[in-house]
Amino acid sequence: MKDKTKKTSGPARLLIGDADTCVDIEYASGFHAVDPIVFFLHGRRRVLVVPDMEATRAQREAHRCVVYTPRALGVQRNQLRSTSSWAAALLAREKMARVSVAPTFPLATARALERKGVRVDVVDPLFPDRAIKTADEIRNIAGAQRAAVEAMRAATEMIRRAKIAGDRRLMLDRKPLTSERVRACIDETLIRLRCICELTIVAGGRQSADPHERGSGPLRAQDPIVIDIFPRHLDHGYWGDITRTLVKGAPSAELTKMYRAVKRAQHEALQRLKPGVVASGIHAGVVKRFVDLGFATGVIDGKHVGFFHGTGHGVGMEIHEAPNLGLRPTRLRAGQVVTVEPGLYYPDIGGVRIEDTVAVTPTGWKYLATCEKGMLI
Amino acid sequence: MKDKTKKTSGPARLLIGDADTCVDIEYASGFHAVDPIVFFLHGRRRVLVVPDMEATRAQREAHRCVVYTPRALGVQRNQLRSTSSWAAALLAREKMARVSVAPTFPLATARALERKGVRVDVVDPLFPDRAIKTADEIRNIAGAQRAAVEAMRAATEMIRRAKIAGDRRLMLDRKPLTSERVRACIDETLIRLRCICELTIVAGGRQSADPHERGSGPLRAQDPIVIDIFPRHLDHGYWGDITRTLVKGAPSAELTKMYRAVKRAQHEALQRLKPGVVASGIHAGVVKRFVDLGFATGVIDGKHVGFFHGTGHGVGMEIHEAPNLGLRPTRLRAGQVVTVEPGLYYPDIGGVRIEDTVAVTPTGWKYLATCEKGMLI
Repeated sequence: MKDKTKKTSGPARLLIGDADTCVDIEYASGFHAVDPIVFFLHGRRRVLVVPDMEATRAQREAHRCVVYTPRALGVQRNQLRSTSSWAAALLAREKMARVSVAPTFPLATARALERKGVRVDVVDPLFPDRAIKTADEIRNIAGAQRAAVEAMRAATEMIRRAKIAGDRRLMLDRKPLTSERVRACIDETLIRLRCICELTIVAGGRQSADPHERGSGPLRAQDPIVIDIFPRHLDHGYWGDITRTLVKGAPSAELTKMYRAVKRAQHEALQRLKPGVVASGIHAGVVKRFVDLGFATGVIDGKHVGFFHGTGHGVGMEIHEAPNLGLRPTRLRAGQVVTVEPGLYYPDIGGVRIEDTVAVTPTGWKYLATCEKGMLI
Repeated sequence: MKDKTKKTSGPARLLIGDADTCVDIEYASGFHAVDPIVFFLHGRRRVLVVPDMEATRAQREAHRCVVYTPRALGVQRNQLRSTSSWAAALLAREKMARVSVAPTFPLATARALERKGVRVDVVDPLFPDRAIKTADEIRNIAGAQRAAVEAMRAATEMIRRAKIAGDRRLMLDRKPLTSERVRACIDETLIRLRCICELTIVAGGRQSADPHERGSGPLRAQDPIVIDIFPRHLDHGYWGDITRTLVKGAPSAELTKMYRAVKRAQHEALQRLKPGVVASGIHAGVVKRFVDLGFATGVIDGKHVGFFHGTGHGVGMEIHEAPNLGLRPTRLRAGQVVTVEPGLYYPDIGGVRIEDTVAVTPTGWKYLATCEKGMLI
């Protein structure tokens, strides 16, 4: 993975973590850290501190970085597994008495550095440019998104082929069609395309009223089936994200009305996307559309109903990253990649969500991959 | 997933993060957090603060926890996306002026709490019992390990079926057998078993001299092929970990000697495993065995050679967790699950590593799954 930071000025930045806990390290160094490491960036100087066993790989993958091992920095033997000690030794070597860190910087390390007289400033976000994707990054996200679409089509085809039994259960190849079977088909399609999705959602009926419920058991005709696929591409680590809601057989008038409202809200939100637009305004538009169409949001019998999540989120090296299309009044910029995913959820009926991942372009937006939006199959 | 904490006394503990960045939350609450959340544990009281859209799922999955949304805690609208504000509101509600946190607790939140007069103590580890697995947890790890063994066998079979071309390249079905093809076979086997491995290693020849190099391109006869499979089970999130080193065709005398040394070192390390034994002693035994057999460790031409990683690591809800079989003099305890994975690496020859994941039992240890250890195929 290439280093994508362009700026070389500003205060020294210090990062600690592995590839999962501190995505900025891979973003800014190009190195995928299996175990926690230390990364330091000041002007043009980029330094990685990695365990002995990672030194050769780090030199090869992060070719713009100086690579140290803790031993080379003089870290004492009994401190060799303490990344706080690595950071302290590195800052002493760099003669650096002040560093900027992310809000999630580990508290114990900050305190260890402060005890040595280092001033630790929290900066949020530490890499604001990460929200603006390069052409290569957009290509990577589009690759993951195309895999998501292919998996969605495979899932749709399974449901299309199913027959409806007397009790409304869907049957395929003489066995009940379950959330688990559809999910297995999705996951196998994804892995063939070098992608994985850990928490694929295939939630039918009332289960779908809970936006993050993964779903289990037999699927039924006339019920909404929410399928949410958000794969990460194994070759480069970028994510895609798509949701469709399907119904086999004739849905109720209520469910049809919900579906139309969600589809319309998504269409309107997409039409508003362009650089300079305030993210919270797009979200407010969706909220208002639902209210205007008679879909109330609130808490009933202790359960959240209506539309109670954000309209979308940034997608990139993390599945949820900046910018958020919710309550914050940030302005969109060209090069950002976001989902647009309004939804409506009522425990007695189930849920409807339609989600696409799109790039903000200089003049508007574009799909990173297209996929049919019909509910009936 | 069940809540596995048994102790109910001690200081109040505060955790912030999602399922990837703060594994302790799922361990202690049973709730798998897709986005960052707040978890508080004091005596028998367990509280989760989750976004609106997660409230219903949290109530269902974390049935021993009280579940709040930020709104219910009175968090102001412009702070609804700030987990620091959630934590501050929760501690005010709980009338708690002092909390214990993990070393990786986010610095920005700690400072926000300190500004409100809360004392924040770092405790390492915050959940020491997590290293001692329950019978259910060992069953989960064994499930992931069996999947890893099945994938290893599928990969071995591919290499076994390959023919050797004139330039030592392995050929299968008239096409070169590459790291990528073997990895695809492994990954597809895993996903059928509801497991994923993001960074499966299939590294041949000189590539294998770098322990975390994933490997690419054609595989060759007489070269070592290091295959390291560490899957996570999608149903419960526990990991397995196995490595084998294979050679197609006759290896050099040097490579054979390396293989025997690694196999012997692993055997001896396993024989030493039992409760009460000092982890660093096991590691020192492996280091000494290699030295006695003439395999030097050090830095040659800027490259680490010999045996330059730990002998093993704990496995559970994380692929690398406590206890570490390395430099630290911690004593092993029954119920711990560890890898035992000595290796030797020389740039001109390549690498040899043999790894199994085993449970420490009251009287010794046991494999969580068994797999052949022959090098020649």
